[in-house]
Amino acid sequence: MIKAGILGATGAVGQRFVQLLADHPWFEITSLAASERSAGKKYGEVAKWRLDTDLPESVRDIAVVSTRPEEVDADIVFSALPAEEALKIEEDFARAGFVVSSNASSHRMDEDVPLLIPEVNPEHLGLIEIQKKKRKWDGFIVTNPNCSTIMMVMTLKPLMGFGIESVHVATMQAVSGAGYEGVPSMAILDNVIPYIGGEEHKMETEPLKLLGEFDGKAVKNAKFWVSAACHRVPVMDGHTMSIWVRSKERPSAEEVKNAMLKFDPRLGDLPTSPKKALIVRDEPDRPQPRLDRNQGRGMSVSVGRIREGQDGAIQYVCMGHNTIRGAAGASILNAEVLKKKGYL
Amino acid sequence: MIKAGILGATGAVGQRFVQLLADHPWFEITSLAASERSAGKKYGEVAKWRLDTDLPESVRDIAVVSTRPEEVDADIVFSALPAEEALKIEEDFARAGFVVSSNASSHRMDEDVPLLIPEVNPEHLGLIEIQKKKRKWDGFIVTNPNCSTIMMVMTLKPLMGFGIESVHVATMQAVSGAGYEGVPSMAILDNVIPYIGGEEHKMETEPLKLLGEFDGKAVKNAKFWVSAACHRVPVMDGHTMSIWVRSKERPSAEEVKNAMLKFDPRLGDLPTSPKKALIVRDEPDRPQPRLDRNQGRGMSVSVGRIREGQDGAIQYVCMGHNTIRGAAGASILNAEVLKKKGYL
Amino acid sequence: MIKAGILGATGAVGQRFVQLLADHPWFEITSLAASERSAGKKYGEVAKWRLDTDLPESVRDIAVVSTRPEEVDADIVFSALPAEEALKIEEDFARAGFVVSSNASSHRMDEDVPLLIPEVNPEHLGLIEIQKKKRKWDGFIVTNPNCSTIMMVMTLKPLMGFGIESVHVATMQAVSGAGYEGVPSMAILDNVIPYIGGEEHKMETEPLKLLGEFDGKAVKNAKFWVSAACHRVPVMDGHTMSIWVRSKERPSAEEVKNAMLKFDPRLGDLPTSPKKALIVRDEPDRPQPRLDRNQGRGMSVSVGRIREGQDGAIQYVCMGHNTIRGAAGASILNAEVLKKKGYL
Amino acid sequence: MIKAGILGATGAVGQRFVQLLADHPWFEITSLAASERSAGKKYGEVAKWRLDTDLPESVRDIAVVSTRPEEVDADIVFSALPAEEALKIEEDFARAGFVVSSNASSHRMDEDVPLLIPEVNPEHLGLIEIQKKKRKWDGFIVTNPNCSTIMMVMTLKPLMGFGIESVHVATMQAVSGAGYEGVPSMAILDNVIPYIGGEEHKMETEPLKLLGEFDGKAVKNAKFWVSAACHRVPVMDGHTMSIWVRSKERPSAEEVKNAMLKFDPRLGDLPTSPKKALIVRDEPDRPQPRLDRNQGRGMSVSVGRIREGQDGAIQYVCMGHNTIRGAAGASILNAEVLKKKGYL
Repeated sequence: MIKAGILGATGAVGQRFVQLLADHPWFEITSLAASERSAGKKYGEVAKWRLDTDLPESVRDIAVVSTRPEEVDADIVFSALPAEEALKIEEDFARAGFVVSSNASSHRMDEDVPLLIPEVNPEHLGLIEIQKKKRKWDGFIVTNPNCSTIMMVMTLKPLMGFGIESVHVATMQAVSGAGYEGVPSMAILDNVIPYIGGEEHKMETEPLKLLGEFDGKAVKNAKFWVSAACHRVPVMDGHTMSIWVRSKERPSAEEVKNAMLKFDPRLGDLPTSPKKALIVRDEPDRPQPRLDRNQGRGMSVSVGRIREGQDGAIQYVCMGHNTIRGAAGASILNAEVLKKKGYL
Repeated sequence: MIKAGILGATGAVGQRFVQLLADHPWFEITSLAASERSAGKKYGEVAKWRLDTDLPESVRDIAVVSTRPEEVDADIVFSALPAEEALKIEEDFARAGFVVSSNASSHRMDEDVPLLIPEVNPEHLGLIEIQKKKRKWDGFIVTNPNCSTIMMVMTLKPLMGFGIESVHVATMQAVSGAGYEGVPSMAILDNVIPYIGGEEHKMETEPLKLLGEFDGKAVKNAKFWVSAACHRVPVMDGHTMSIWVRSKERPSAEEVKNAMLKFDPRLGDLPTSPKKALIVRDEPDRPQPRLDRNQGRGMSVSVGRIREGQDGAIQYVCMGHNTIRGAAGASILNAEVLKKKGYL
Repeated sequence: MIKAGILGATGAVGQRFVQLLADHPWFEITSLAASERSAGKKYGEVAKWRLDTDLPESVRDIAVVSTRPEEVDADIVFSALPAEEALKIEEDFARAGFVVSSNASSHRMDEDVPLLIPEVNPEHLGLIEIQKKKRKWDGFIVTNPNCSTIMMVMTLKPLMGFGIESVHVATMQAVSGAGYEGVPSMAILDNVIPYIGGEEHKMETEPLKLLGEFDGKAVKNAKFWVSAACHRVPVMDGHTMSIWVRSKERPSAEEVKNAMLKFDPRLGDLPTSPKKALIVRDEPDRPQPRLDRNQGRGMSVSVGRIREGQDGAIQYVCMGHNTIRGAAGASILNAEVLKKKGYL
Repeated sequence: MIKAGILGATGAVGQRFVQLLADHPWFEITSLAASERSAGKKYGEVAKWRLDTDLPESVRDIAVVSTRPEEVDADIVFSALPAEEALKIEEDFARAGFVVSSNASSHRMDEDVPLLIPEVNPEHLGLIEIQKKKRKWDGFIVTNPNCSTIMMVMTLKPLMGFGIESVHVATMQAVSGAGYEGVPSMAILDNVIPYIGGEEHKMETEPLKLLGEFDGKAVKNAKFWVSAACHRVPVMDGHTMSIWVRSKERPSAEEVKNAMLKFDPRLGDLPTSPKKALIVRDEPDRPQPRLDRNQGRGMSVSVGRIREGQDGAIQYVCMGHNTIRGAAGASILNAEVLKKKGYL
């Protein structure tokens, strides 16, 4: 078993890491790190557990440590830290020789850090050697994208052959994406908030790196643009997005559907990898977050309503579980690929 | 006082008509028409009143009649009928000499029927004479657009000078838009439904007529295209939409904002007309349906987040009360314009 | 495998039956019966599937039959029929020799029909012989109680030794209890409805039969009273109730908690029986429907906040999954007990 | 005009005070006090305004001061402070000669402080002289009860003549009762929280003082007991409660209804006093928070489902707007009574 630590273990994404790693066949939770305030206390006491499965017995009595490398006993650390803390702490861990699989945004756009979706751009892992050499680190950092970006990019990947020129996307995002205290109920009951700080910028920049080409030295960004409008809606889990894709080839809806159906990321049988990365639905009113977010144990992205729009664009809806496929599950799948490819 | 009847008076939009007309300075409710099943009974008994103001005393004891012209005593009838019923019934009323102010979709796209937003295209009322002559009717039909279309078109009108080429719009629509029994709670609690039957087609076609030019004989459609994606969200009242507008002139966000601020429909002081047709907000996270839907007693459309997007497009969010500005209030404002201009 | 039919298979509870029986180790779905309108069509076409797991492949192509005994091929039928239909149809099936495990209320209070919670009153199954003899039927009917009654009675059972005198209960019930179309979203978003037709009567009468004594001939009602107030709240699944129990013995909160912890229904290892029938929680703010409804795969009842109230009463909160523990799962557990005890 | 200050002016209840006082015929807002952090800045900048009416123009540019008497220019201060801060600060203000009309719980149960509902116990204002004398203050403190207590006690008052012996109450409370950040959306969407810290104790003790007798020197508590169970539900505004009242006289439902209908607090025409303090509804499913909370501009308490329960008790449902009738509106009505009776 690979020893796994979790940084930021008490928050909403941290709890998802604990939940998903508790029975993992390859990883064993050996360290739970959080703020100084929690350090020294048992995880079961400091983590106000809010998932609808029980707190795993195996972690209840683990003494929480602070987020310093010397306190953490692990081969790999999963980072659920807030961006501002992750910036320095994740570097400290990589420098100290840890593999860091991060959900934080701090290093995603660093030139030498892989921004990874295993189904999309596994070849970007070539950046690891460049990173280690350049930074003179024993360990390294690998990141997963923003939650909404993941869902969208998984649907764009099979369309790259059509020559994507532009993407319009409007999101309807779940409250869990903002963390447990992130969205007050008075803000969102019977309401839509048409703004999520920083989200649109991430959705407009990360896809270009993710779908860019790694030439052995660097990633050259993909050549299209994304225009995003992000909204918060009264949904617990599951980000829904409405997408318009305009491509050089002007494919028909049928061709796009087939491309998605044929999409096979060839990940083999990684523990967290769903049977189907993309699920294409034919019903007129799906996917829906409440009905579809748990597909593939939360790791599948569901697509529906593929249709031809104005001006030759293709329109569709996609949806995925934001704290599983879009956060903790994404980092864990990244780690599984690292293991499979010998980086861990 | 002008005698007013309401067709479909017991449903969700019908109740809004009753609420808004009960204290109207120009109109007096003289007839409430509904299905045969309700005919003969008192309105207070058959209308299961569901608005958060009390059922007006003045209508409680009115005996409901059926939707036949000979049973209705009125100068004008407001139609809240379902589209399939409205098709024939509204024609019967117009033929019988009534002015019909309709919220139904049945006749909106008829060449000789005005599709009217008083702030946008009052000159289209010229179609009335053409309609009466062609159909040999004493009365006539005037319609208001689909609820989402109204909000959007009111924001497009001041941008017409920039040479609009295309519009992308993603809506997040309130459940009241589907009528009282329209959306089961099991369908929408903790959920988004990415489909509303017929809505996208309406949003893609009605704006072209609304913003088209009346040359004295017919309306020539405006020359741009709209691509719509419509979604239902767990919100009671208030449709929110995210809009991208691409124009020949490539205006800056500031220019667009100024055009909206300067927008003055010159309606004078009609009873239902709000002080500001468009309210432009500067906060980063507005408009929001819960906070802004009652602006201008539900008749103002709120706009926010005006910004420059990719490829020279302008992005913004708009929101309005769907059963007031988008339905009953729209029909009533249409009737007020008819009165003011001497058609009634 | 025992052949199982489902009556009312397309509705909300019917779908739960399908979901729970699809992989059942003892039962095999052989007949799906619904209204004439659906008869002859494939289940996958007529059942608008609304659960968050996929429609089981094994039932997708089963041709739906009507609810007549001669059309149903089964040893046992599970009834998810509405009460008014169940009254006659269930009798038809029992007369025709079927075992009927019913979730409908029609026959619950019949003197010779067991109203069964396996953990509470398995000895009431003695009524079966009396029923068959009296009615001259080859088959028989066994019923499970109203959803809210089940949760409450499971917590009352271990307190019977204290000499219960009276129970006050206020419920906060999920919308799924009313069926898919039962509660319009406009009725319940941002709202509480302080009334559920017939529910209070069921909660005030069924517990007395359930906790009554079977003397070999009849059930003598338990001697206490229940006073219920039932409310609908915007929750998808999981009925929460606040309970006051006054008993002759005036037990302490600690004694009540211990009685609940020691409660062991000795059901053995029936497939649907949860490890713990009652889960007693110590947190100040649990149980909560969203967090606890899936405990024991939806079959456990969770209890919390056990405390001493005014006048020597004990107060607590209990919660359980209304469409699993309170409906389909209850009927299936009843059937498992019937099998185990040789009635099937 | 009487000069009015608001302590804790930026919070949820503070904003309600601002909203309700902005156009008040007797009071003029002259000071807005909040934490040191906000002091010196304009109210429009520091108060993140979250009500669905616009921030009143008249207060936008008022410079916020800190909560020290020497900084506040007012004849009366309305306190929306949190309990822990109110304890000392309100005393500072009363000592400095201000009339303090407080919504905080800190001094409610002080022997010499009136806990006031003008419709219920105006004679308790006699405590003011005792308070001033005993504490040697120029000013004084008057408090309003806990929000849920207010609704309930207003319905109990007309029943006092029946000889109330005991009250069971289960509440379903809106999220606004906890303040803007009080209830995270992840805690309450699709959920019920069966616990509100301190609430049950307030509901069990405050009514006894409110309905107690003032003999010229002190208030002697009323002689019955209340047993409360408090729950949070996903409702924005409006606390609903289900109540059982047991009385010596065992009145019929009809007698109770008549007592409530006849209830006339004789407040005269105070600006904030609603036409009807109690609204008794006959529909089987009312009151409901979404439909009834704004009755009497949020100051009426609605009652329904009055019925005879087990053991001679009377059951009913009551509901009122928690931040208007239950908080800011309550304090303002108290102040109006103070003015009318010459204390101000």
